[in-house]
Amino acid sequence: MRKSAGRCAVLTAFVISILGVGATAVQAKDDPLPSWNEGPAKQSIIDFVTRVTEEDGPDYVRPKDRIATFDNDGTLWVEQPIYTQFAFAMDQVKRQANQHPEWSDEEPFKSVIAGDMKAAAAMGKKGMVEIIGATHSGMSTVEFNDIVSNWLKTAKHPRFETLYTDLVYQPMLELLDYLRANGFKTFIVSGGGVEFMRNFTDETYGIPPEQVIGSSGVTEYRMWDASPALIKQPKVLFVDDGPGKPEGINLFIGNQPILAFGNSDGDKEMLEWTAFCRRLCFMGLVHHTDGEREYVYDRDSAVGKLDKALDKALAKGWTVVDMKNDWKTIFPPEP
Amino acid sequence: MRKSAGRCAVLTAFVISILGVGATAVQAKDDPLPSWNEGPAKQSIIDFVTRVTEEDGPDYVRPKDRIATFDNDGTLWVEQPIYTQFAFAMDQVKRQANQHPEWSDEEPFKSVIAGDMKAAAAMGKKGMVEIIGATHSGMSTVEFNDIVSNWLKTAKHPRFETLYTDLVYQPMLELLDYLRANGFKTFIVSGGGVEFMRNFTDETYGIPPEQVIGSSGVTEYRMWDASPALIKQPKVLFVDDGPGKPEGINLFIGNQPILAFGNSDGDKEMLEWTAFCRRLCFMGLVHHTDGEREYVYDRDSAVGKLDKALDKALAKGWTVVDMKNDWKTIFPPEP
Repeated sequence: MRKSAGRCAVLTAFVISILGVGATAVQAKDDPLPSWNEGPAKQSIIDFVTRVTEEDGPDYVRPKDRIATFDNDGTLWVEQPIYTQFAFAMDQVKRQANQHPEWSDEEPFKSVIAGDMKAAAAMGKKGMVEIIGATHSGMSTVEFNDIVSNWLKTAKHPRFETLYTDLVYQPMLELLDYLRANGFKTFIVSGGGVEFMRNFTDETYGIPPEQVIGSSGVTEYRMWDASPALIKQPKVLFVDDGPGKPEGINLFIGNQPILAFGNSDGDKEMLEWTAFCRRLCFMGLVHHTDGEREYVYDRDSAVGKLDKALDKALAKGWTVVDMKNDWKTIFPPEP
Repeated sequence: MRKSAGRCAVLTAFVISILGVGATAVQAKDDPLPSWNEGPAKQSIIDFVTRVTEEDGPDYVRPKDRIATFDNDGTLWVEQPIYTQFAFAMDQVKRQANQHPEWSDEEPFKSVIAGDMKAAAAMGKKGMVEIIGATHSGMSTVEFNDIVSNWLKTAKHPRFETLYTDLVYQPMLELLDYLRANGFKTFIVSGGGVEFMRNFTDETYGIPPEQVIGSSGVTEYRMWDASPALIKQPKVLFVDDGPGKPEGINLFIGNQPILAFGNSDGDKEMLEWTAFCRRLCFMGLVHHTDGEREYVYDRDSAVGKLDKALDKALAKGWTVVDMKNDWKTIFPPEP
């Protein structure tokens, strides 16, 4: 460094410190969570990460044990008015309808084909399982991935009229980045289908396929057109929801998370299991409170019901993110 | 650096280069696989790694797709005279015998308690599943891990009279390190129980629990002594052997390996699936040919039978490691 430059830097630093503008500038630049408003939610995250990464501190956790698990629907991206994977499945029913004439008399397919989403939704979980089963099987994993990734490139959300992968929460993207920058390994632990999700999780969240855990169907390895293939069967292997989340964490990760984030009662057991980590742990819930920028729902919602998990979070002092007040922006800026 | 030291280093380098001893010294020091004898097996590994990591080369593979999968029993550690996990299970039968008086009249438990290993082994897979089922369930995952890790600290191999975790193959440890140093992510894909393996795979192989895939039982999340627990059920969820290996790779990793190593017919489908990777891939088999330092077995072995996979490897030109001739040493040096 030339002498004059060194002298100049010292002078500048001196002027800035006198004027008191340096601290603010540095803080804004270094803020790992710029889309989060200052407040207890943001502070609880930063405190936690600071404490578990402080090498000589009492709460230090080795990088290999810095496991963070995130629900997907409603925690990392929009889940209203219906789960994205269900919107995909319904589009597939319509697309495949002329290969299945029997569907025109058979519920829930009949309502889906007629475009009566309300009637289809009223069939609840049973109807959803039938539709997912029919549209997610009878093909190889390669063919399925092609169908999903093509759909994700074109299908639009009914209200926001944009690709579903644009409807991810900017504050959560920042949180994922912040955790990884601090040596965490980030996982998705979702009730959604693992093969559906793996078509966008790497590009969208920076989470590679091997760190995505979800509900899974049976696949069968066999020869298919003289090549080996994995054929998707209409049979559930594992449901990664509710108690299935800690079970899935044990099966796929084999280690205890020290941070978990969810948004609904389906995440309650994952958060309880994380709270049992016997060291400093972080449990967070996204509370959908912003009807203008996103949606308002909790205790009575058909999709993403948040009732018992909210009571538990309030009783235990877990972090509850108030979307309206805690998030400066909801979605990433348009590219 | 002081001037005299600098001058001295230059002089030394000059002398070495004239004497021609520098190159050899550097080569031995830089050999990533020092326990492998020079030959086609070692060369095929180094060629493969060099080609897929050469950034401007035609076979370049991005780090995120450098997925390497390894069988465990007989590929990374000794599997004779019986699988280590089975030795563990039989010890557990003896340990638990007085809590199960009914076992004294019931096969295969009766033979195990009587120490008649030959009779127990003759009961084959069915007997093994019963013994594993009885000894690997009815407890929490935490309790099970305590039992396994204590057993691994004390139980000795009948022939080598050393801990089982000392009976890992030094050349394969070097291969795992070499791959990781070249941006590969290393996974275990084993027919063995995933929870059994995770008690030693990180310390022994440098493979963290979330990169270990194996056969899995059902666990049930529930409250246990007022704390949440995962209770191991006597019910198989997933068998990670034969066709189960590509199925497990799809379920747990969600990406195609470009390198796979096995040693028995149970690895045939994993190798076939890897060979279908549509770019440069590496398929390897460890062939147990060294009765003096380890064991000799292949086509007729009850444990680790290698028959169809060997035919396929020979027909397809996959790498077959001749343990006797390709490996300079078998086990790590004693600490």
